[in-house]
Amino acid sequence: MQLWKLILAYDGSSFHGWQVQPHLPTVQGTLASALQHITGESVLPQGSGRTDAGVHALGQVASFALASPIPPANLLRALNRALPASIRVLSAEHASDGFHARHSAQRKTYEYRIFSGNPCSPFLAPYVWDCPWPFSFQLVRDAATDLLGEHDFTSFAAVDPDLTARSAANEPVSNIRTIYRSCWHEENGLLIYRVTGSGFLHHMVRNLVGTFVEIASGRLPVDGIPRILAAHDRSAAGPTAPARGLFLVSVEYPA
Amino acid sequence: MQLWKLILAYDGSSFHGWQVQPHLPTVQGTLASALQHITGESVLPQGSGRTDAGVHALGQVASFALASPIPPANLLRALNRALPASIRVLSAEHASDGFHARHSAQRKTYEYRIFSGNPCSPFLAPYVWDCPWPFSFQLVRDAATDLLGEHDFTSFAAVDPDLTARSAANEPVSNIRTIYRSCWHEENGLLIYRVTGSGFLHHMVRNLVGTFVEIASGRLPVDGIPRILAAHDRSAAGPTAPARGLFLVSVEYPA
Repeated sequence: MQLWKLILAYDGSSFHGWQVQPHLPTVQGTLASALQHITGESVLPQGSGRTDAGVHALGQVASFALASPIPPANLLRALNRALPASIRVLSAEHASDGFHARHSAQRKTYEYRIFSGNPCSPFLAPYVWDCPWPFSFQLVRDAATDLLGEHDFTSFAAVDPDLTARSAANEPVSNIRTIYRSCWHEENGLLIYRVTGSGFLHHMVRNLVGTFVEIASGRLPVDGIPRILAAHDRSAAGPTAPARGLFLVSVEYPA
Repeated sequence: MQLWKLILAYDGSSFHGWQVQPHLPTVQGTLASALQHITGESVLPQGSGRTDAGVHALGQVASFALASPIPPANLLRALNRALPASIRVLSAEHASDGFHARHSAQRKTYEYRIFSGNPCSPFLAPYVWDCPWPFSFQLVRDAATDLLGEHDFTSFAAVDPDLTARSAANEPVSNIRTIYRSCWHEENGLLIYRVTGSGFLHHMVRNLVGTFVEIASGRLPVDGIPRILAAHDRSAAGPTAPARGLFLVSVEYPA
C-alpha cells in the first residue's frame, strides 16, 4: 500500500461540509467516489479537520492509502477530471510512513473575510460575511493580539459531538491551543482575519470572528478577550460568524 | 406614474436567465416579486436585453413604471433587502419620459472570461470558460480587430425565437450591427474579451468567443473572420462558448 497526501481547494457552498454523510454531497464523500472511480479501491480519505457546511478551503490536506501503483501526476490529472469543478486537487504526492492528515498536522491557518460596505457584489456574497454596520478596524486589530500564545479556548468552542464521544471513551480531551498569529488586515476592500494555531476547536474561528465583530461595533469592550478566555464559558463570547466567510488556508506538517 | 431606471449586478449561476418563466427562478421574475413585495404593484421590469441562463451581469439596466411615490434611495435600500444576495441593485433613479431599457439602449458592452491554465480555482470555475488546451493570445488579439465596424452578423447568430415572432409580425428585423470595440487583454491570469456594439444578436458574443477559441488553437485561420461574416451562415463559425464566462458589463443611453 502507498500512502498519499493531497492538497485540495474547494468551494464549500456546494457541500454539506467535509465529513461524509448519507445522501448528502460532502467533500470527503465526493473525493472517495472519485478515488473509487479511478482505482476501483474503496478508501475514505482523512482530512486535516472537518470543515463545516459552507466553509471553503484553499489548502485542505487529505491522506489515504492506495494499492494501485499510479504515478502522482496521473492521479492528480485523473482526480481533476473526475471531480466537480467546485473541488480541485492542487497537488498529489506520496507520503512517508505514518503520515496522517489530521494526526500529523502541526499548525493550521484560517482566514475569515468580511465585507463592510454597501452593496455587496453578488460575486463576493457567497465568500464573505456582509456586515453593513459600522466596523472599527482599529478596535479588532488591537483585540486580535490578545489571543497570541497558549490559552484554554473553552469560551470559543461549540460542543463537538465527536469530542464528546472521545471524552466518553476516556481519550484525552483538552481545550488548550497555541495561537502563533492573529491579525486583521484590509485587502481589496475586504476586512480579513488570519489566524495560525496548533489546532482549533469546533467553530472556534467563527466564534472568534463573531466576538471581534461585537468588539468592532462597540457591543463588547476592546480589552474583553482576556476576560472571555478566563470565563471558560461559551456564553461569555460573541455569536458564531456565518460559515461562508471562512477559508481553511493551509496546514503545516513536520518537514 | 413614475418611470424608473435600475442598474443591476447578478450572478447568473443561480438563475434560468433574465426572462420570466413559470416555476423557474429568473432575474426578471425575482425583481418583479421584490417590487410587488415593496410597493404592492404588479410590474414586469424590462431589461436592456435577455441574458441567457448562467450569464452574469455587472451592469444590466431595467426600466419600469410605479405609481407609489417612493424616494430613489428608499427603493434602492428596500430592493437590496428584498432581493437574494445573488442580485444587487447598484443604482435606482427616476427616468425621463419615454425611457425604455431595451429600446433606448445605444451601446452595450460584454466581457467574456477564459481561464487557460491548470487547475482552475473552484472559486473561478462558475465565472470562466476553463480552456486547458494551448491558447495563442496573439492570434485572437489580431483576429478581434476584424469585427470592428458595421457587419451582417448572421453567421454568429443563433435562431432567436423572439425574433422569429417579430419577423412573422412584420416588424423590421436586421442582423446588421456596429462593433465599436473588440479586443482581448490579460488580467489576473485570465484572458478577457471585451466587445462594445450597437447591439448583439442571440448568442452572438458566445459564438464570437467560440470562434476565437478555434482560431487560438489553430483550428480556424487567424484571417478567417471576414470569410465567416461573408458566409451569412451559422455553420461557418465556431461553436457557442459556455454561458458562465459571459458578463453584461454596461449599457449606454443618450445623455
